Amino acid sequence: MSVATRMEDASPQALLEAIERLARARREPPPGADVGALDREARELLRERHPADVAYVLEGLPLEDRLWAWGLVDRERDGEILLEATDAVRETLLRDMDSAEIVAATQNLDADEIADLASDLPRDVVQDILESQDVEDRAELQAALSYPEGTVGSLMDFEVVSIREDVTCEVALRYLRRFDELPAQTDALFVVDRDDHLKGTLPLTRLLVTDPDVEIAGLYEREVVSFAPESDADEAAQAFDRYDLVCAPVVDATGRVVGRITVETVLEYVRDRQEAQALGKVGLREEEDIFASVWASARNRGPWLALNLCTAFIASRVVGLFEGSIAQLAALAALMPIVAGIGGNSGNQTTTLIVRALALGQVSAQNARRLLAKELGISALNGAFWGGVLGIVAGFLYHNVALGGVMALAMLLNLVVAALAGIFIPLAMDRFGRDPAVGSSVFLTFVTDSMGFFIFLGLATVFLL
Amino acid sequence: MSVATRMEDASPQALLEAIERLARARREPPPGADVGALDREARELLRERHPADVAYVLEGLPLEDRLWAWGLVDRERDGEILLEATDAVRETLLRDMDSAEIVAATQNLDADEIADLASDLPRDVVQDILESQDVEDRAELQAALSYPEGTVGSLMDFEVVSIREDVTCEVALRYLRRFDELPAQTDALFVVDRDDHLKGTLPLTRLLVTDPDVEIAGLYEREVVSFAPESDADEAAQAFDRYDLVCAPVVDATGRVVGRITVETVLEYVRDRQEAQALGKVGLREEEDIFASVWASARNRGPWLALNLCTAFIASRVVGLFEGSIAQLAALAALMPIVAGIGGNSGNQTTTLIVRALALGQVSAQNARRLLAKELGISALNGAFWGGVLGIVAGFLYHNVALGGVMALAMLLNLVVAALAGIFIPLAMDRFGRDPAVGSSVFLTFVTDSMGFFIFLGLATVFLL
Repeated sequence: MSVATRMEDASPQALLEAIERLARARREPPPGADVGALDREARELLRERHPADVAYVLEGLPLEDRLWAWGLVDRERDGEILLEATDAVRETLLRDMDSAEIVAATQNLDADEIADLASDLPRDVVQDILESQDVEDRAELQAALSYPEGTVGSLMDFEVVSIREDVTCEVALRYLRRFDELPAQTDALFVVDRDDHLKGTLPLTRLLVTDPDVEIAGLYEREVVSFAPESDADEAAQAFDRYDLVCAPVVDATGRVVGRITVETVLEYVRDRQEAQALGKVGLREEEDIFASVWASARNRGPWLALNLCTAFIASRVVGLFEGSIAQLAALAALMPIVAGIGGNSGNQTTTLIVRALALGQVSAQNARRLLAKELGISALNGAFWGGVLGIVAGFLYHNVALGGVMALAMLLNLVVAALAGIFIPLAMDRFGRDPAVGSSVFLTFVTDSMGFFIFLGLATVFLL
Repeated sequence: MSVATRMEDASPQALLEAIERLARARREPPPGADVGALDREARELLRERHPADVAYVLEGLPLEDRLWAWGLVDRERDGEILLEATDAVRETLLRDMDSAEIVAATQNLDADEIADLASDLPRDVVQDILESQDVEDRAELQAALSYPEGTVGSLMDFEVVSIREDVTCEVALRYLRRFDELPAQTDALFVVDRDDHLKGTLPLTRLLVTDPDVEIAGLYEREVVSFAPESDADEAAQAFDRYDLVCAPVVDATGRVVGRITVETVLEYVRDRQEAQALGKVGLREEEDIFASVWASARNRGPWLALNLCTAFIASRVVGLFEGSIAQLAALAALMPIVAGIGGNSGNQTTTLIVRALALGQVSAQNARRLLAKELGISALNGAFWGGVLGIVAGFLYHNVALGGVMALAMLLNLVVAALAGIFIPLAMDRFGRDPAVGSSVFLTFVTDSMGFFIFLGLATVFLL
């Protein structure tokens, strides 16, 4: 094929559909069908595809078909496909392998890649893998395993190409030709001294446009962004985004190069983290294989429902305090969810903006007061306006001006409560080291529901009955 | 400085704090302070910094201080800083410039970068910019302006380095040395025929390790991922993530190279889109400058509150239908928010998983039925369990076994409703071309609230009164 592939021709969706078709034909074979031929066809389809595409197909298949397709994959590609699969699906694949197969699958992987898999593997399998490595690889793997999640070290790989500054471009080019290939995503050589201390980087694009006789010393970039292995991965991701990095050196406390971090890993980290946040917001601890069993899924989702039942129950007890008032004026029951709900909506707007400002490091002690004043102002303005509108509507609907007045006042007050809670809850979570993007909403809704009911029913009891 | 910069030394937060300090000193100068010296110091701090850092500082300053700092920036850097700023902050900066200044600011930018700014500029300024360009740049700019948002064309740039296949590596290297510098994020040369039709790509890392006498024809990658300018930017982003791309060619319908798309642009696109989704979920049309006026912010947030008030009002009218029942048994008012709320929580879990599966293209006609069956199963299981628990609690609390039974049954039914709505709402939004990640939650909450009230109060009216 001398023609470049267009995305449309090679879409993983099309591959998934083809494999689905074969799996269906295999499950319910037409009379006289050659089941072996179906296997061969599927094997052929999967053979040349990028591991990420194969992982995508496995994720899109129900368990039984998934394990069938997994059995058709060339064994030496197992490792790279496992790496690309989501945690939930990877688990189902690993459960289908014995420890010898798992150890074999890791033989084609780099230390940092094995470390990514390790958290899903039984401890003794990890030990077997360590023992199967040669000395240098084992040292790298142990280093990779030692960094906690969320650090630069956990994203780092070891495929560093470095060079000394006292040579010419010609020498550098000759040195590079001794490689069979350069590591993927290498966009610069790391310039180091004799003790591997980082002095700067030489972008390949600069090396390529420079006369071969020029010395590296006069050419390389001295102001480079580098990271420590214990640095926060989120900050590294922000730096990659901000400075348009492709690959950056990781150095230890003495300035010695210990590895590198690439945009590929960063992009994957950002995506995984955002997915975890999206799932965490609705209380899904882990991503759910869409073909997981009803039972496993129900258990994954249950704790969140339990937590929300508790908060809803407490809010319900607040209403319970005012059952006497409600028995006298049932309109209160119809109107109270509006007061509570609108507080939640408004508070979530505030929280979303604060979470974003926190992630960007834009909330300081100095401007926190300013933000508070602003949010209170907005909630007062919106509360006065929309409270007024709803107060008038409620007043007309029930021919009761005082009820309308209580409604308007309660909405105003609950929006102010929502603004306060919308600011303080994410700030407090951040202070206590929890991710404010994930849990803020439950607490916020708890506050705006309970307070909304209390304010509205309390005011009504005082002024209307 | 011959030492590489560590992230910690150069953090943009530290820069922001330094500039904040100077701004404060300038606003309330101590007696005898030299205001000019403060300006000079701030100018010096900003001068050498990456445009993204300067934009970060401007975003972190209240309007008055922001415009002061903006005035201290070297005019020829205006364009690149505007590019890095968020839309909301960029607007405040542009409002401070006259059209001649804006045209001047764009002179250092590439066509694709000007196109990014253009949506924020008055039409006549865009016209002035077009007229200020030479013929080739103008053609590129017009091309860049012609692609709608969300397409590959809108993310594309024109900094293509291409080469023919019938030359040796030696010739290629000599050709590259004629450049002053290669475009940022160039990781491969595009191999083309004499009519600029794409034949493949030659990774720089491969060029660098190959003997200079080898012909390009035997060396380049023929199976490459390329995009059409009208392709969906989301799909391109997924391909970059899946195949670990740094830079990919964009070709027209005849296979001719028209530009390229880089991981930097993709990363920025992904981040912007995810932010827009996070904001859109709580009805914030645009990102809000955290120092925007109370008035502007209240208007930005008002429409969302209005929409939610409407849905809450309708749900309230559902309760209104049963005011007679509530007057007889006020406990219903206390318990009904639990039934409604838990439906919303459970439905949001379903929706979150469906939205994710939709984004990955994993929902097909075939497995939609399967997903539906699964979600119904989970909701029935969770509904039976948690409904049972709450039913028992409610029965004891009010010494009313029948009330407990109604509570349990209503929770079970509302969770089933939530599962149905949680699947159908995002699917319908997707079908009608709306982003299901953004608006699903309002509709879902509307359904689970209204139906929760209706089911619970309806059952109570039939069985308890």
